[in-house]
Amino acid sequence: MLSFSDRLAQAVRRCGNPVLVGLDPRWENLPEPIRTGLSARPAEMAAAYRRFCIEVVDVVAGRVPAVKPQAAFFEQLGPAGFAALGDVVAHAKSRGLLVVLDGKRNDIGSTAAAYADGWLGHSAEYPWRADALTVSPYLGDDSLRPFIETAQSRAAGLFVLVKTSNPGGGMFQDLLVEGRPLYGYVADYVEQQAKATRGGEGYGIVGAVVGATYPEQLAQLRHQMPHAWILIPGYGSQGGTARDCAAGFDDRGLGALVNNSRGIIFAYERKPYCERYSAVQWQRAVEAATDEMIAQLRSITPAAALGGPAEQ
Amino acid sequence: MLSFSDRLAQAVRRCGNPVLVGLDPRWENLPEPIRTGLSARPAEMAAAYRRFCIEVVDVVAGRVPAVKPQAAFFEQLGPAGFAALGDVVAHAKSRGLLVVLDGKRNDIGSTAAAYADGWLGHSAEYPWRADALTVSPYLGDDSLRPFIETAQSRAAGLFVLVKTSNPGGGMFQDLLVEGRPLYGYVADYVEQQAKATRGGEGYGIVGAVVGATYPEQLAQLRHQMPHAWILIPGYGSQGGTARDCAAGFDDRGLGALVNNSRGIIFAYERKPYCERYSAVQWQRAVEAATDEMIAQLRSITPAAALGGPAEQ
Repeated sequence: MLSFSDRLAQAVRRCGNPVLVGLDPRWENLPEPIRTGLSARPAEMAAAYRRFCIEVVDVVAGRVPAVKPQAAFFEQLGPAGFAALGDVVAHAKSRGLLVVLDGKRNDIGSTAAAYADGWLGHSAEYPWRADALTVSPYLGDDSLRPFIETAQSRAAGLFVLVKTSNPGGGMFQDLLVEGRPLYGYVADYVEQQAKATRGGEGYGIVGAVVGATYPEQLAQLRHQMPHAWILIPGYGSQGGTARDCAAGFDDRGLGALVNNSRGIIFAYERKPYCERYSAVQWQRAVEAATDEMIAQLRSITPAAALGGPAEQ
Repeated sequence: MLSFSDRLAQAVRRCGNPVLVGLDPRWENLPEPIRTGLSARPAEMAAAYRRFCIEVVDVVAGRVPAVKPQAAFFEQLGPAGFAALGDVVAHAKSRGLLVVLDGKRNDIGSTAAAYADGWLGHSAEYPWRADALTVSPYLGDDSLRPFIETAQSRAAGLFVLVKTSNPGGGMFQDLLVEGRPLYGYVADYVEQQAKATRGGEGYGIVGAVVGATYPEQLAQLRHQMPHAWILIPGYGSQGGTARDCAAGFDDRGLGALVNNSRGIIFAYERKPYCERYSAVQWQRAVEAATDEMIAQLRSITPAAALGGPAEQ
């Protein structure tokens, strides 16, 4: 099986865009038709999350290369939520989408291996078979090693938190160590691991999370981590624009995935979509918001190099 | 309801020791009687984890103040594992034990709030009602804030990773920022939040994780965080001794919980217990290992101040 990094490059080329649709189901934002007749009890909420995310997947499949389910919202509902998450991951894969599970997991030794085994489980007996998982670096090398080893054995990938999109991210990440911010040291580690696992397209299976809300740092980190795929959150709702993401791409239009969650899945709630579509037509708002984001990113990335649908 | 920090102080006094028994079920280490007739399929493994952890809880209830289930091993099994974890947490609480869920979760804003809501859920509808949760600090203040607010509203607590017990923990945690290690800055934040939430016993609901494998740093961090409970991992299997933990306590014998997982729950596998008890008597090995650890810690903490069973 091709490595995660090469499968990701293929998917981005096939779709002609680097959009990563975030699946963050929030009860209070679900379109009325999805919530009708259901009460806010875990089992019923889980059923609504399952249905909503599967319908979003059906709209974006074929349009974008990957989706990013957020574990927290499913986890909040307990076992019923996790069962729903398993169904969403399986459905997304069956529709040809790559699945980046956003769990920001981290632990040490065999405990880290247990997380990796669960999320990147390749056997059909496991409920989750994500193609990649987000992980947190605070615990250091021997906490990331088991995740990397499992990912390698499963043709999967990882995205390590480096420079996050939130305002408070700098509290520790920006602390200067001998004149360089802490996140730069995490980036050194990511590049080292990415280079060691690089595939045919030149990228490794260990990537980095760098927020669109910090364009200058994104440009510098792209340069510092030439072999790492960058997952860019913060587009849209958090204020990041397509232009802010431009520096994340290589001259082939590869190397970065740009995430948008609320801005796409709950597009029916905001302008201009709420003026065009009712809550009953929420899927059409998802479709329109996805196409708009694809167009925005094509305007700043060398999309021609991608040779996707746009060029056909 | 009393704050988590005050309930913890009460529990430590009641039991006369600060032992935190880690519930880390590992299939390959489970006593033969627990695995008999079961295959390594998630549903059957989950049933075995449930039974094993509930039996461990029945042995240590009344002896120690708290248990620490490790989310990863249950999560590895999918929804069935999470259902088992929910049963273990509920059983531990019904037996009067405080439950510190080891999940090392971290995310931002409403996503962090979703994790906190799930794990610290107080409604009976939620599968987990842990008394405290471990969290990772890399994402900064606005990632920890939602956890703290939820914990406050649920009379629960948090333990933030500060200086972890693993050898590679220093890779980022020890980087020097203006002459001080990064973990010292995380500790500043923890102390600030602990002081702001302190209860009658002088401790706050925000605590810190500091490994027994770094006794000098533990002493310094105890001094730096006078209002924070310290969760001390690394005792036993990882090499930490009772003496290494001594600096974590205040002069009342409060302020620290010392965790031991494998060393207690799988005691039947190691000397001297494996010579005294067969796999069929594994619970007696758990009992003996727990009592030995209690005695070890009493020898180095001002246990007299605790006025527990030992003094009666």
